[in-house]
Amino acid sequence: MTTPAVTTPTSEIIGILGGMGPAATADFYAKLVSTTPGSSDQDHLRTVIWSDPTIPDRTEALLGTGPDPTPWLLAGSRVLREAGATVIAIPCNTAHAFVPRIAHHVGLPIVHMVGEVARHLTTIGPRIHTAGLLATTGTVRAGLYQEWLDRFGIRLVLPDATSQNDEVMTAIRAVKAGTHDDTTTTLLADAARSLTAQGAQAVIAGCTEIPLGLPADAVDVPLVDPALVLAQALVRRATTEGENGQGWGW
Amino acid sequence: MTTPAVTTPTSEIIGILGGMGPAATADFYAKLVSTTPGSSDQDHLRTVIWSDPTIPDRTEALLGTGPDPTPWLLAGSRVLREAGATVIAIPCNTAHAFVPRIAHHVGLPIVHMVGEVARHLTTIGPRIHTAGLLATTGTVRAGLYQEWLDRFGIRLVLPDATSQNDEVMTAIRAVKAGTHDDTTTTLLADAARSLTAQGAQAVIAGCTEIPLGLPADAVDVPLVDPALVLAQALVRRATTEGENGQGWGW
Repeated sequence: MTTPAVTTPTSEIIGILGGMGPAATADFYAKLVSTTPGSSDQDHLRTVIWSDPTIPDRTEALLGTGPDPTPWLLAGSRVLREAGATVIAIPCNTAHAFVPRIAHHVGLPIVHMVGEVARHLTTIGPRIHTAGLLATTGTVRAGLYQEWLDRFGIRLVLPDATSQNDEVMTAIRAVKAGTHDDTTTTLLADAARSLTAQGAQAVIAGCTEIPLGLPADAVDVPLVDPALVLAQALVRRATTEGENGQGWGW
Repeated sequence: MTTPAVTTPTSEIIGILGGMGPAATADFYAKLVSTTPGSSDQDHLRTVIWSDPTIPDRTEALLGTGPDPTPWLLAGSRVLREAGATVIAIPCNTAHAFVPRIAHHVGLPIVHMVGEVARHLTTIGPRIHTAGLLATTGTVRAGLYQEWLDRFGIRLVLPDATSQNDEVMTAIRAVKAGTHDDTTTTLLADAARSLTAQGAQAVIAGCTEIPLGLPADAVDVPLVDPALVLAQALVRRATTEGENGQGWGW
């Protein structure tokens, strides 16, 4: 079956390919709801979420130490399409490394979180020339933000190898384990400071777990939350009639 | 299709029939995730969520002033079943008034939130003889908690008509509109006090919006969150092998 015939107010049905991790998926859906204008339940967007936390770790796959998650991503996309989704959002930065492998098989547009963040950076004033990235080692190695920021002429700076491993990845694992605390925030704030020291005028919280461990006020420059940027892009798309072709050509 | 063949770690796939309202669904999924034991993504439960905020208002239907949401609930259940769900949870108290109309058509067990709350109340010490209810007028009129607490020999007390309308319903609408603030908390805390004055030894936050507006420490007695109780019941069910028959015979 596709869309239940009994519901028709807006044609868009948001499909969320989630579970990477599950807490980030819950947080993303909360952001989508709070970003949607409206004063009653009925003003909100129909959404279907496939949250499969058993999808193999994306970073391990990119580092060659774990299985390829592509079959899981394809299976999840199929569930969303069959449930009636008209567009897919993937609230996991690292998973975007696999988007080129699934995009042509999904049969639905994918609103690209990394592309939306790059575009969003061009809207912040004063103009951003250099942005820093806090992300998984998988996302860093895959060059996802590098590629997209290059397209918009923004320089990307990264933590050094020690900070990436001992601060960023330690903090991400703590959030995934539900054990994050003030120490986690300190680790991430220190890593962010190493980015502003390299000239970063904004810091991208480039793993959906990071905003859960790093409050925006712990960083001296704007902290960009890709999940929020993605939620805003989905709401814009769903509420802007006749403008459904904002694909990025990946 | 049913379950993607590529994922098999646990057999249970949680189906959440949501959107009533969408913020409560996001909150419920966050509670399900935080209730699940485990230290990595892969320890969590596969979950599919159908969140249709366009489902007609449940209270209006029960008061005879709006359309019957049953067809929407059936359509959503079908989406969940076809996506591979093995059990359904409905994180909306008022919607449980319609469970008898859909239970025999869904083809999947429904873990009954109101039944789980009644059972949970019997596990609180010292023994609860009287419980109070903050809920929509629809839930109150449908007698959902009355029926289930009766089965367990617990007396139910309710706000008077003025408190129900001016405090409880005003607060629920504020949460649904995303405009809740300290005033909302005061309204709900006042309503809760009218229940403890009638002897309530526990207060049921019997509408998924209420815990979003009423912190537990604003009430003198235990505040029972049905969404959390439902999440715990699902985790127990999914992690207890061979004990999948906890239906309630509604």
